[in-house]
Amino acid sequence: MVCSMTPDTLNPQERLDWLRLIRTENVGPVTFHQLLQRHGSAAAALAALPDLAKRGGRKHFAVWSRDAAERELAAIHRLGGKLVAWGEPDYPPNLEPLDDAPPLLTVLGRPELLARKSIAMVGARNASASGQRFAREMAYDLARAGFVVTSGLARGIDAAAHGGALAQGTVAVVGGGADVVYPEENRGLHEEIIAEGAIVAECPVGTVPQARHFPRRNRLISGMSVGVVVIEAALKSGSLITARFAAEQGREVFAVPGSPLDPRCRGTNDLIRNGATLVESAEDVLAGLLSLGGRTPVEPPRRRPAPRPAPETTQNERDEAETSVTRLLGPTPVPVDELLRQCHLSPSIIAMVLLELELAGRLDRHPGGLVSLR
Amino acid sequence: MVCSMTPDTLNPQERLDWLRLIRTENVGPVTFHQLLQRHGSAAAALAALPDLAKRGGRKHFAVWSRDAAERELAAIHRLGGKLVAWGEPDYPPNLEPLDDAPPLLTVLGRPELLARKSIAMVGARNASASGQRFAREMAYDLARAGFVVTSGLARGIDAAAHGGALAQGTVAVVGGGADVVYPEENRGLHEEIIAEGAIVAECPVGTVPQARHFPRRNRLISGMSVGVVVIEAALKSGSLITARFAAEQGREVFAVPGSPLDPRCRGTNDLIRNGATLVESAEDVLAGLLSLGGRTPVEPPRRRPAPRPAPETTQNERDEAETSVTRLLGPTPVPVDELLRQCHLSPSIIAMVLLELELAGRLDRHPGGLVSLR
Repeated sequence: MVCSMTPDTLNPQERLDWLRLIRTENVGPVTFHQLLQRHGSAAAALAALPDLAKRGGRKHFAVWSRDAAERELAAIHRLGGKLVAWGEPDYPPNLEPLDDAPPLLTVLGRPELLARKSIAMVGARNASASGQRFAREMAYDLARAGFVVTSGLARGIDAAAHGGALAQGTVAVVGGGADVVYPEENRGLHEEIIAEGAIVAECPVGTVPQARHFPRRNRLISGMSVGVVVIEAALKSGSLITARFAAEQGREVFAVPGSPLDPRCRGTNDLIRNGATLVESAEDVLAGLLSLGGRTPVEPPRRRPAPRPAPETTQNERDEAETSVTRLLGPTPVPVDELLRQCHLSPSIIAMVLLELELAGRLDRHPGGLVSLR
Repeated sequence: MVCSMTPDTLNPQERLDWLRLIRTENVGPVTFHQLLQRHGSAAAALAALPDLAKRGGRKHFAVWSRDAAERELAAIHRLGGKLVAWGEPDYPPNLEPLDDAPPLLTVLGRPELLARKSIAMVGARNASASGQRFAREMAYDLARAGFVVTSGLARGIDAAAHGGALAQGTVAVVGGGADVVYPEENRGLHEEIIAEGAIVAECPVGTVPQARHFPRRNRLISGMSVGVVVIEAALKSGSLITARFAAEQGREVFAVPGSPLDPRCRGTNDLIRNGATLVESAEDVLAGLLSLGGRTPVEPPRRRPAPRPAPETTQNERDEAETSVTRLLGPTPVPVDELLRQCHLSPSIIAMVLLELELAGRLDRHPGGLVSLR
């Protein structure tokens, strides 16, 4: 799998460049991968960024400083942690094929757990006592069956799932920095997971989690896993967002049913009504994965593709493309595919314009390949 | 719909003959309908019975006496009840197309309820308090929406469903006689249903219910209804038998989910896993009936067909057919269709042989068109 352009492990300079690139303002994972493909390396992309942003309409643009990146690396090392890069052996194999796979993950604990097959378990923070007991037992059984149990280290079901799988293998994906305890009541569990499992974060260490981080965190939980088990979830809850991501990512969605009289079960019952597999035990989940296995699109991991030079485009062509794209876009997220259909321009020109707009801070990317103008 | 051979309402003599025929030993509903078709009337069938039984291998055969039938009719009248015959206006329209539709139903209360559209609700006898409350409320809502709620007058969910629908319309199908209170704790409800709803029985008045009556009773509950809602049912419970009958009869099966930790929900969860529609409210049931309506095989009621004379068959042909049929049959129930495929004989000869064997007490019929040798 190793070729000159796509080493399995980054060298220290590359890792620093990757970190600088992904921490640079307006560079999200999709843009990161596009830049890497177009320019061949993070270093080359960093050099090109100011000019690209300028073409997107931004006069002053600063890339993330080497100092700041070095400080982050030092902080990770002080915590005994590791920065795992996309394409490296420890990178979660199920996450790798996704368009918005994080280029770098901060890991505290045992990074080798990320490469193992994972099942996600999520559910209500205000879970019932019996729901938490159920989650703990199911997590224990799934872990005994050889799966890493991945969850979000929230109160309730998440904490119970981590607790049940702790001795065998559990991964917590957090919304803030990997070292930031949240919520406070999970401090003990946080430390136990660092000791026996792994805590994974897309944000830099020290980041205090904010509401906007959680949908993105949920997407990683489902993206890392072959399937997601939802236990006790109210309608319109975060767990249902995770289940929706899972379905979009082609993962299996399992839901534990409950009484219609308990609002904490309305979401899981609704998932079942809409096609999720009803499960009452770890055995059911394992049987479901076996019988549905053919549908699980765990593609062969995509390694970093060879760089493709930017298309030769005149300034005039580029400006016309920007006019077309911005005319079609607004504050409502639109699929890039839809844009391609309506624009009648080459995909590479549109990708370039979107990239430049994003760097200039004029465009937002959303899960599922959607974009909107700011 | 009225033609000379198939009056919509039986005259008193016909009703007496029908009652004698169906109460005669070894004459079940399937055989009853075949005899009626073959001989044109119950009176003619009664006259032919001893000879048919003799051909099936039985030397002495007595039809049900006129006296006994008159005593039963008198008892029904004393109770203020009514005997509703297959094909009469009050006969449940959904039951009519079934091969084993009872020729006569004893009804106490308001027989006109039987002709209305019915939804069955069944569930655990040892139901939880919340399950019973849920059943009562759902029954109330379904009845308010215009449905008769049909159940089996057992403890638990059945009683709650009848109670919720009592004022609007409820039908209780019982395993014993319509006048026999069972269980004793439902005495008050039994009386209330006679006053405001209807109690329906296939067995004669005065019959004490026995275990073997209940599967048959369950089959009538589902057969009378467009759909069956199951609330709290353990694995291997009677409610699941009703659900299986419902599926065989092409009725919709609805199930209310529950916690995997409650054994009373394992059956309903299992139904959902196997394709039943998950419902959390009467609204869900009504929506399900609407959206699945195309699949509901509420065929146009079959009226009594014109009689078809018995085929001309030599004694030799008949004996050979009996040899073939009895060679293929054993104590394990086998579908009649399978028998037809393997026998290479005309369906009418096989039907005749089966009928004669049944009358002679050598053959049992089972739900779903299965037969076995005794």
